[in-house]
This record gives sequence, C-alpha cells and structure tokens, in this order.
Amino acid sequence: MTEPTPAQSQPVPFDPHATSMGDEVAPEVYEELFAMRRSIDNFDAALVHILAERFQATKRVGLLKAKHNLPAGDPGREEAQIARLRAMAKESSLDPEFAEKFLNFIISEVIRHHMRIAAEQQDDEQGENPISADHAD
Amino acid sequence: MTEPTPAQSQPVPFDPHATSMGDEVAPEVYEELFAMRRSIDNFDAALVHILAERFQATKRVGLLKAKHNLPAGDPGREEAQIARLRAMAKESSLDPEFAEKFLNFIISEVIRHHMRIAAEQQDDEQGENPISADHAD
Repeated sequence: MTEPTPAQSQPVPFDPHATSMGDEVAPEVYEELFAMRRSIDNFDAALVHILAERFQATKRVGLLKAKHNLPAGDPGREEAQIARLRAMAKESSLDPEFAEKFLNFIISEVIRHHMRIAAEQQDDEQGENPISADHAD
Repeated sequence: MTEPTPAQSQPVPFDPHATSMGDEVAPEVYEELFAMRRSIDNFDAALVHILAERFQATKRVGLLKAKHNLPAGDPGREEAQIARLRAMAKESSLDPEFAEKFLNFIISEVIRHHMRIAAEQQDDEQGENPISADHAD
C-alpha cells in the first residue's frame, strides 16, 4: 500500500493474460492460448534484445566508416546479406520474402540512426566528416 | 572438381567479406569492419531463427482460434504487448518507437499468413470456419 518510489527504469506491470475476449472463452481454451502467448512473449523479448545489440554493432560500423571516410553504401555486402538471410529463412520454414523485407526494414532504421548521428556530428564539427546517411550494414 | 549434386536445401556460398569497397581501404580497417560484420551476421542468424519460431507459435494460435471460433483481434492483448516491448526497448537502449514499429511490422506479416491459411481452409472446406484475417498475437 506504500507509494512506489519513482525509478529511472520503472517496471511495467505487464499482464501476460491481458485480453479483451472476456469469459465466453472456456478456461481450458484460455489455458492453451496463454501457454502459446507465453512462448510468443519470450520470443519477443529475445528479438528486442538481439535487435538492441545489432544496433550497437551498426553504430560502431557507422563510426568506423566516418573515421576512415569509407563509402556509405556497400552494395556487394548488402547483396550477400540478402542472399544469406533468404537461404536461412527457407531452411527454417520462414518465408524468404519476409526475411528480405525484414532486413530492409532494419536497414532503413539503421539509416535513420545514422542520419541522426550525422546531424549531431555536423552540429559538433560544423560539417567535418559527417557520417553519411546510408551506411547500411 | 566433381559437379555438386543438387540438394533440396543447397548451401549458399555466403562470403562474410563480400564488399564493393575495393582495395583503397587499409587491411587493418577491413579487419576491424569484418569483425563488426561478423557480429551483425550472427545477430541476423539469431533473429531469423527466432522469427521462424515465433511464426510457428502464431500459426498454432490461429488454428486454436479458428477451432474455438474465438474473436480474431484482441486489442487488450496488443496494447499489453506494445507497452511491454516499448519498456523493454528502453531498458536495452533500443528506440521504443522502433520496437513498436517492429511489433506492428511482424503483426502485419502474421495477418498475411492467416489470410493465406484462411484462403486455403476456404478452398478445403468451402467456407466453413475460415480463419479470420486478423488474428494478430
């Protein structure tokens, strides 16, 4: 009953059984559904954390490229990445089209990040060695 | 020198050093870049395999919902998922906006899958209990 102290990273009271379906659903069906959702929630946690780490890595790449004035895009690299992810998707019964869309979705976010870094760097250095907007990786 | 036998799941000759940057880049810079890309490639492999497994889970949810005539959408569930992923993103230094966009991106793919299943089921059963198009989960 005590007021929780405000914290920087406040735990969100996630309810794994949150639903709008009400009690027309039989308890044993709910049980089965919630078990499946538990797995989905675990996969989502894994995805978010791996994505966070992937963005740490592309940030380092962006800084390295800026430091050495390397070209922003690298079509040969991107082509190899797409072919690899499509093949990997196929082997794990994931739609290869989706795998490619997924990579493009992430790359566009990486670009957005780099644009932000470039803008910050331009503010700091008045335009010297700004990080180009399309270091995909 | 023998011709490789065609296989169902043919290994794709992925070159982790594929690049269009040529040899104007110093070897030690390439070394650093390739080490970073090695990590990115590992993260991508993890992402693809977890995504594949997540789609297995949502497929099971779609079948369960169809079997028990459960409502397709579940706004209460989606709201909880978004709040959780945003909080988790924040804690792992990932942009919460991106985490939300990411979840929506996946959900739209899940919907696409369910539409395909529904169409297949309609072909099989002439419209009995088709799986609705928007079992998000």
